[in-house]
Amino acid sequence: MVSKKVYFLTSNPHKAKEVSDVLSQFSIEVVPLKGEKLEIQADSVEEVARFAAEEAKKRFKERPLLLEDSGLFVDALKGFPGPYSNYVYRTLGLEGLLKLMEGVEDRRARFVCAAALVKEDDKIVIEVGEVEGEIAYEPRGDKGFGFDPIFVPLGYEKTFAELGEEVKKRISHRARAFMKIAKHLSGE
Amino acid sequence: MVSKKVYFLTSNPHKAKEVSDVLSQFSIEVVPLKGEKLEIQADSVEEVARFAAEEAKKRFKERPLLLEDSGLFVDALKGFPGPYSNYVYRTLGLEGLLKLMEGVEDRRARFVCAAALVKEDDKIVIEVGEVEGEIAYEPRGDKGFGFDPIFVPLGYEKTFAELGEEVKKRISHRARAFMKIAKHLSGE
Repeated sequence: MVSKKVYFLTSNPHKAKEVSDVLSQFSIEVVPLKGEKLEIQADSVEEVARFAAEEAKKRFKERPLLLEDSGLFVDALKGFPGPYSNYVYRTLGLEGLLKLMEGVEDRRARFVCAAALVKEDDKIVIEVGEVEGEIAYEPRGDKGFGFDPIFVPLGYEKTFAELGEEVKKRISHRARAFMKIAKHLSGE
Repeated sequence: MVSKKVYFLTSNPHKAKEVSDVLSQFSIEVVPLKGEKLEIQADSVEEVARFAAEEAKKRFKERPLLLEDSGLFVDALKGFPGPYSNYVYRTLGLEGLLKLMEGVEDRRARFVCAAALVKEDDKIVIEVGEVEGEIAYEPRGDKGFGFDPIFVPLGYEKTFAELGEEVKKRISHRARAFMKIAKHLSGE
């Protein structure tokens, strides 16, 4: 099978690794493109990813160009921290989120990833992947990054940070979004 | 004294009223310009206001054009909620912020406002106003908006929501930023 090359705009090496793990299963080679994407304030990761893709396509000439935005949406907190998950992780941390969930019985949450593809013809495709789960009562595990140590995906008893890449590359929000993107790339 | 007219881009009627209260003291008339400003994700309100002003000056022809971005920065929470104060107010609310501060002795916080002025010659001026204070232990008062009911400015025992506009128009972050802006407008 001929391998295809795509560029992935990110400043997060964890994300580059995860996207590469997913796309390599489709014989797609991921070339990290170091740089900042422009992120707007919006209530959905789709909106953030779409705006970032529109802006990045003017600034970068590499094609196909990928980027993504993702977040943890906690039902009992009206979706918080949502698209601001990175900022909230850096300020409140896992402890802050767990404090907000103290005494809260409804632990349901979902990770959502919006992946954006800027195609050779400059058209933009957005695909969204989600994984449902629950917020744990304490951090567990040391794999992954961000809120992984307190997220238990539906059907599992371990957190993403305990399960690690073998499971994440099959069921994570990012895996699900980029598997859909892989179909667009193979079809090009 | 000749009154001068300025346009203020906002979707928040409370902010329009507060800015008008401040600038009317300088014989400056504020005309609200209804519309959304484009807000980026950034760790400071200055960055958010500057980007919004650069974008707004392309989209609106009215001059002088004002806009602002503001936020509540809590020391013990590494500045959270900062530039995302509106989102955090809509999701976690006052209760969520108070829950994060449970058992926290260091209550210090500051409201920061970055006011942007797009002048007749399209040059942009940014002025920042701050007010120091503390996070209260429970909400008090029904004036103002946002986090006003849990913010006690330094030198006072009441919250902004108890003190109301007579005090806010003299000492608030927004008042302080727009008093500096008034000097630019009078000097034009």
